[in-house]
Amino acid sequence: MKTVIGVMGASQASETDCAHAALLGKYIAENGWVTLSGGGNTGVMDAVSKGAKDAGGLVVGILQGSDTGKASEHIDLAIMTGMGMGRNAINIYSSTVVVVCGELSPGTLSEVSLALVAQKDVILLNTTSKLGEEIKNFNPDRIHPCKTPEEAVQIIKSLLI
Amino acid sequence: MKTVIGVMGASQASETDCAHAALLGKYIAENGWVTLSGGGNTGVMDAVSKGAKDAGGLVVGILQGSDTGKASEHIDLAIMTGMGMGRNAINIYSSTVVVVCGELSPGTLSEVSLALVAQKDVILLNTTSKLGEEIKNFNPDRIHPCKTPEEAVQIIKSLLI
Amino acid sequence: MKTVIGVMGASQASETDCAHAALLGKYIAENGWVTLSGGGNTGVMDAVSKGAKDAGGLVVGILQGSDTGKASEHIDLAIMTGMGMGRNAINIYSSTVVVVCGELSPGTLSEVSLALVAQKDVILLNTTSKLGEEIKNFNPDRIHPCKTPEEAVQIIKSLLI
Amino acid sequence: MKTVIGVMGASQASETDCAHAALLGKYIAENGWVTLSGGGNTGVMDAVSKGAKDAGGLVVGILQGSDTGKASEHIDLAIMTGMGMGRNAINIYSSTVVVVCGELSPGTLSEVSLALVAQKDVILLNTTSKLGEEIKNFNPDRIHPCKTPEEAVQIIKSLLI
Repeated sequence: MKTVIGVMGASQASETDCAHAALLGKYIAENGWVTLSGGGNTGVMDAVSKGAKDAGGLVVGILQGSDTGKASEHIDLAIMTGMGMGRNAINIYSSTVVVVCGELSPGTLSEVSLALVAQKDVILLNTTSKLGEEIKNFNPDRIHPCKTPEEAVQIIKSLLI
Repeated sequence: MKTVIGVMGASQASETDCAHAALLGKYIAENGWVTLSGGGNTGVMDAVSKGAKDAGGLVVGILQGSDTGKASEHIDLAIMTGMGMGRNAINIYSSTVVVVCGELSPGTLSEVSLALVAQKDVILLNTTSKLGEEIKNFNPDRIHPCKTPEEAVQIIKSLLI
Repeated sequence: MKTVIGVMGASQASETDCAHAALLGKYIAENGWVTLSGGGNTGVMDAVSKGAKDAGGLVVGILQGSDTGKASEHIDLAIMTGMGMGRNAINIYSSTVVVVCGELSPGTLSEVSLALVAQKDVILLNTTSKLGEEIKNFNPDRIHPCKTPEEAVQIIKSLLI
Repeated sequence: MKTVIGVMGASQASETDCAHAALLGKYIAENGWVTLSGGGNTGVMDAVSKGAKDAGGLVVGILQGSDTGKASEHIDLAIMTGMGMGRNAINIYSSTVVVVCGELSPGTLSEVSLALVAQKDVILLNTTSKLGEEIKNFNPDRIHPCKTPEEAVQIIKSLLI
């Protein structure tokens, strides 16, 4: 069964966060892992999907809706939940490791929170807000801050051993 | 249709937070509103259910499981979702106003985050951690900190006008 | 905890099926049980909700959407799932006994099927199609055909002992 | 985006139904489509996954649970919903075309019913019970009975044009 890296992030994300997401997607693909995201056609979701797809990786989107209307054109496989916000739980349950790319939107924060509930490891890639620090206090062993996609990949590798 | 006040909080909560939850449940009942929670038999969920039930209110629990094994004995109506963490989204969709009672556990934080996504008002009742402040920054108009159950009820009333 | 009778049926239902649903709702209310349905404003869902509400019962609607746009005006409590078809599973998990009122639409058939999976008792009230007979073959002990709302209530009572 | 063929069937299936499922999985893989099922390690789900995997196809399992405890060893990608029966809706939403392999269990019947609600095409492969005939009456244009995996693939091709 393939290792699934869930990449979460804001749909309205900065250029830096999107560039990080694209590079992260590339590295995920190069390592033979599956890229999973919310599958939307904006922000971090779209950027990580494009990065992974362009590098020949398998890209999965777990969509809120019951059709592909708002799906990124860079996903291979659309899982349509029709569940709205409830799909965030599926993103977390289905990810071996979770990476948050950049700043936390409310939706992304819900996913980090659910990851803590589900005892999953969460890598915070360049999450500079105080919110990131506060979240680390919940479970310092499970929350892994880092600065670059390269570091994120090193952490993933160490977690998968 | 009845007004539904969703009360969220940690399953391992302090005595103060549970006392606040019980009093809040009482006030919700006295105002003719429905008390909705995750329906568990511990912490804030159990305390608010008991407070509301003892005061003659209608008490609903939206359970993670598909049976009543972990349900509070103080709920009138058990909605069994069988959805695990996915039920947190239903708690938020179904609440007219959301009240967080005390400190934020990861599960409660996921509910506050989803409430922000869904543009619901959230009252933070005696949430003293920095996390509460950080969350207020997402949408200061929707996040309402207060100190006592009495204040929480006043804020609910002002939001329902 | 209250006993919950889940009443399922077509959104486009015959006059007879709607009349049966209304009478069934009345009897459910008079027996102190909660009426649960999909909460829509058409067909069997609307009729059973009106019947129960007019008789002073507690009426719950488990809605597909995340708002009350298509909700029956006769429900007391709207549980908004935002889950589309996925909410059918919640209808079944949350019902002590399931009653199908009249002919089986595809949506109703999905609920009967899920009830069989979940080992719930299903009363088929005036379901005259061959489909009803075929379903009985799955588990004759759990499928209870009858002709009138009065008979349905007698069967519910015998199942609740 | 890849075409997804959802294959549904009983977890306790006959040898014939399992043999059909394995062959169907092989053909799905050879046509470059994705095989989607409930992902379990028994019956039709396991057989179709093995058939598709052995032929080099991409195999997705949409699991009821939040871990891989009951997952087929032949799936590449496990989507863990943690939703119990609610995941059946996701199977249907996510399938371009649905194939039922053999006799209808209650769980499979719920999926066919949901497919009718969602206006998806359903191929009934060697479903010999009267139930299959009755279901065809709901929407003769959407229900496609056939006898062999080869015929099923021809129907899929005609539907995808």
